[in-house]
Amino acid sequence: MSVKLKALVFDAYGTLFDVHSVVRLCDEFWPGQGTALSQLWRTKQLEYTWQRSLMRRYKDFSDVTVDGLRYACAALGLSLSELQVTRLREAYLSLTTFPEVKEALGKLSHLQLAILSNGAPSMLDPVVANAGLRGVFSAVISVDPLNTYKPTPDVYQLAVKRLGVPKNEIGFVSSNCWDACGAKSFGFRTFWINRSDAPVDRLDAAPDHVIRNLAELPDLV
Amino acid sequence: MSVKLKALVFDAYGTLFDVHSVVRLCDEFWPGQGTALSQLWRTKQLEYTWQRSLMRRYKDFSDVTVDGLRYACAALGLSLSELQVTRLREAYLSLTTFPEVKEALGKLSHLQLAILSNGAPSMLDPVVANAGLRGVFSAVISVDPLNTYKPTPDVYQLAVKRLGVPKNEIGFVSSNCWDACGAKSFGFRTFWINRSDAPVDRLDAAPDHVIRNLAELPDLV
Repeated sequence: MSVKLKALVFDAYGTLFDVHSVVRLCDEFWPGQGTALSQLWRTKQLEYTWQRSLMRRYKDFSDVTVDGLRYACAALGLSLSELQVTRLREAYLSLTTFPEVKEALGKLSHLQLAILSNGAPSMLDPVVANAGLRGVFSAVISVDPLNTYKPTPDVYQLAVKRLGVPKNEIGFVSSNCWDACGAKSFGFRTFWINRSDAPVDRLDAAPDHVIRNLAELPDLV
Repeated sequence: MSVKLKALVFDAYGTLFDVHSVVRLCDEFWPGQGTALSQLWRTKQLEYTWQRSLMRRYKDFSDVTVDGLRYACAALGLSLSELQVTRLREAYLSLTTFPEVKEALGKLSHLQLAILSNGAPSMLDPVVANAGLRGVFSAVISVDPLNTYKPTPDVYQLAVKRLGVPKNEIGFVSSNCWDACGAKSFGFRTFWINRSDAPVDRLDAAPDHVIRNLAELPDLV
């Protein structure tokens, strides 16, 4: 069908790494509120990345993540101690991968594999190492040097420069539909991991492929 | 306290104009689903403005609003006819103002008053006229000529240029905390109308004033 891919670039959180353990910790700290809190937390975390990018007030993802947490706790009337902030920050460093991830990555090892994430280097390096994936990726790329977040086109361009592969030979994989749309708009061939059977985002840049999880990926590239 | 203000610039939707009638129409079309639908619709409408601004895929607010509606209906499993799209688009053109708005604007008439909104000119002109506010504002400014949305600083700069007033002599009023933060970050003196007792957004640019509604504004300027 399309040009043969030379490289695959993955989003990190929600795509390779399951944030479920963070939700569980929220539920331990605030029984019965874990799901509501983590949803609002995630919403604000992302909103802040977009708003700060537009405002030109970049702050790294680790701090934006804590800002989102503080907002969400305040909105839900939950008290938040500095010890809880530290524990939740740490939980982000030792996330597990989704069950199918390692086997799928193994089948894709004939391609150059990389991560391109909003995460700060101080978050990405530990989570990759803790998951035993250090040797798997030829590059773990953070948006951080650009002081802006996805879906700014310059962010996707980072992967082109770092991998030395033309953009039409790069496949981009994300569980965030807007991220897959941003990458498609930039010029990657895109794979949206639609884990929750959500509708496609109306951004006039629909992903090329919609799959349920990474296990479907090796047959498509 | 601060420099005397020469002009006041208002956000439109949710600040001057109450979108309640749109919610009511949603509830008429999809009984019992009006609130859930309109919340998700609003969330997606805003997300799309930020994402499109970053992706450099601007599309006017009228169309982004319909895109958000289509997504929200799909996510909630509600069928949406083209007639319903038209009716909801039209409802945006004849919103009523919040009860305190006209009296408050009357007390502020010694200042230059303007609107600065994400809305397309094709949406703003009718809603201002239908609410009987045409003579009240010296300028009704849309982001549209810039092909980007709030909180991009260039958008707030539009008001400075159009009004010919330095930014530190302009007060900016919005019910959207992130919008008030964006305006504060740009350099306006800002008033956040916190109608729903929400926490302040953690964007390191907190609004100068937090008030419950516009009736509190005349005493502050």
